Amino acid sequence: MKKIKGGITCPKGFKATGNHIGVKKKRKDLAIIYSEVPAKVSGVFTKNVVKAAPVIWCQGILKRKKTIQAVVINSGNANACTGEVGKKHTAIMAEKTAKCLNLDLYEVLVSSTGIIGVPLPIEKITNGIEENYKNIGNKVEDGNLAAEAIMTTDTFAKQIAVELTIGGKAVKIGGMAKGSGMIHPNMGTMLSYITTDANISQELLDKAFKESNLDSYNMISVDGDTSTNDTAIIMANGLACNEEIIEENEDYEKFKKAVHYVNLYLAQQIVKDGEGAGKLISVTVSGAKTKEDARKLSKSVITSNLVKTAFFGEDANWGRIVCALGYAGVDFDLNKTSISFNCLGNEIYLMQNGIPLEFDEEIAKKILMEVEIAVNIILEEGKEQATAWGCDLSYDYVKINADYRT
Amino acid sequence: MKKIKGGITCPKGFKATGNHIGVKKKRKDLAIIYSEVPAKVSGVFTKNVVKAAPVIWCQGILKRKKTIQAVVINSGNANACTGEVGKKHTAIMAEKTAKCLNLDLYEVLVSSTGIIGVPLPIEKITNGIEENYKNIGNKVEDGNLAAEAIMTTDTFAKQIAVELTIGGKAVKIGGMAKGSGMIHPNMGTMLSYITTDANISQELLDKAFKESNLDSYNMISVDGDTSTNDTAIIMANGLACNEEIIEENEDYEKFKKAVHYVNLYLAQQIVKDGEGAGKLISVTVSGAKTKEDARKLSKSVITSNLVKTAFFGEDANWGRIVCALGYAGVDFDLNKTSISFNCLGNEIYLMQNGIPLEFDEEIAKKILMEVEIAVNIILEEGKEQATAWGCDLSYDYVKINADYRT
Repeated sequence: MKKIKGGITCPKGFKATGNHIGVKKKRKDLAIIYSEVPAKVSGVFTKNVVKAAPVIWCQGILKRKKTIQAVVINSGNANACTGEVGKKHTAIMAEKTAKCLNLDLYEVLVSSTGIIGVPLPIEKITNGIEENYKNIGNKVEDGNLAAEAIMTTDTFAKQIAVELTIGGKAVKIGGMAKGSGMIHPNMGTMLSYITTDANISQELLDKAFKESNLDSYNMISVDGDTSTNDTAIIMANGLACNEEIIEENEDYEKFKKAVHYVNLYLAQQIVKDGEGAGKLISVTVSGAKTKEDARKLSKSVITSNLVKTAFFGEDANWGRIVCALGYAGVDFDLNKTSISFNCLGNEIYLMQNGIPLEFDEEIAKKILMEVEIAVNIILEEGKEQATAWGCDLSYDYVKINADYRT
Repeated sequence: MKKIKGGITCPKGFKATGNHIGVKKKRKDLAIIYSEVPAKVSGVFTKNVVKAAPVIWCQGILKRKKTIQAVVINSGNANACTGEVGKKHTAIMAEKTAKCLNLDLYEVLVSSTGIIGVPLPIEKITNGIEENYKNIGNKVEDGNLAAEAIMTTDTFAKQIAVELTIGGKAVKIGGMAKGSGMIHPNMGTMLSYITTDANISQELLDKAFKESNLDSYNMISVDGDTSTNDTAIIMANGLACNEEIIEENEDYEKFKKAVHYVNLYLAQQIVKDGEGAGKLISVTVSGAKTKEDARKLSKSVITSNLVKTAFFGEDANWGRIVCALGYAGVDFDLNKTSISFNCLGNEIYLMQNGIPLEFDEEIAKKILMEVEIAVNIILEEGKEQATAWGCDLSYDYVKINADYRT
């Protein structure tokens, strides 16, 4: 597998575009993804009880239909908490896109992201679709435009593409995603779209994508708030013409690994671009009794405001890490717990078997001044491990969020 | 029931003192509470798996003994994550206090608060107890000194006293507490001590105190971090000489109500003095299916970083409130949910039956500029209600916590 230039338009038969249609003042706010042939689809969505209208739309379609051909996405307005009119607006977005692209209504998925509780400016959006759908193209630049158009407070576009060989055929996977606040996904991140030309059975597409989600998007946190709009979708149109992957063989493992690589990359990019974030912190818990324990413990640490502010302050405050482990809802023996930080070959042990160690504050400072820091927590409860990713909590997070709506 | 001047030294037979003994650089750091006669005791402690040594000590005593006579408390060092030496230090603190006050070792409770993971400067503490235990007194000022001595990043001392009549006798209840970071109690707050001269059975003392905890300390959040040292203790020495309360009659209800008043007052003071806090936000959820649902929903809203930063920014961002309700882990129908803000007679409805309302931004701004704001969330699921209290998330919270340890 190798990384290649571009994003969602790299796999064969996928086109995209991104344009400014006036939902936002100046920046791009409409993206369209299109597959030339029907693509199998799998998706995971927010577990928030309050689901935005487009999430409900997508879930409905995925229940009934297993192939789609397009996704239409607006940024600037989340179409969440907008009641019946919100549902109508989502259907209108799908209808308009279907008409323009000559598709069936139920072959179009819809996403929205932005402010909650304000009805969509639906005429601007339908006019925007009408005026821009012909711009779709399969160049890298077309993918770039789409990745830009789904951004809200993101400071950079997040995309990736990889190429691998399956059964002698070149298979490509592309992806794009957006963050960057209200990020604490529970089955799916804010918005993430993966395209692939791999030929794979519906069952295994679901399996690979959903399992990868548990250890990618579901393991990141910017601020502990699970959004109403979290959506992660993969489309597989089979145009790579590899022999269909129908069992969990070597080809499947290769595909799954590549999909996970793409998901993980995008998830980490979301954290790096977290609101006000200056550092990417990874927290690995190993030696846990179960995988779920390891996930809960690592996520509890990375979600703690006190841990996050300590990283912002470049303070080796391992006590707060221990405290966050303690309230994660998992039983473990502190007397068999060790904690270290490392970065670029520097490593310091802060605690070994429950006993605080004297450590070199100079080396600690050196590590903490870096922008990517790894926290390792070693238990002696079992053999499972998990990693969670998050960012520091800074003045800028407060600034960005104190005055978002107005 | 009326509020009276003072705190823990108001009830008959309770003495206290607070002094500087050198754990902290300048400020007071040792408090002793003493009852002239054995006092029945009840307590609730952190549910954090990682418990500080003094918490383990107190839990051990409360299991075996139902009367105590003293509590010794140091601030500046939490004696948490200090392994076997931490346990020894706690026992030494109890031993020294018992010797000075001529008590049995197991009649002394111990608390510590401050930095995690550093062994106590135990000699300073034993010398401090030796040199200062004779200062204990029953004046209001003596209670003030104790309330000051338990502070860490608190900006003011938190205490209260009330007087009520039970069976023709004047009964007093006094209390003191400290916050102000790592505040998201799970059965008990950082540190809270209640004294009373009421004569009441052990069983009903437990019942009144533990039930009150669920709706006072357990319903506040400063930063979502449950500490390793949370402790709330009530001591009842019976010196008011009322006929012992042994059943859930009118006297019991009066006593319970007064205890809850004291706990709630202290809990709210902790939130008001939350690190970096500028506003006290109360979130009431009514019309919930169960009391537990109402608690979960209100606490989810007040714990959300996005909700808290919106209040800091004085932004009527009800969408974030809806989002936090949605991920609370409780099922409810958004289409029957209404939300309003009110303060000092001003009220605005932001949402009614799931539909966002146009509201007067001027009135919203007026309410949001106040320092105490009530958020009312009305469901149509049932008849239960609960209130949670929290504060805004400000630049100062980040500042205080980015550099706490060094």
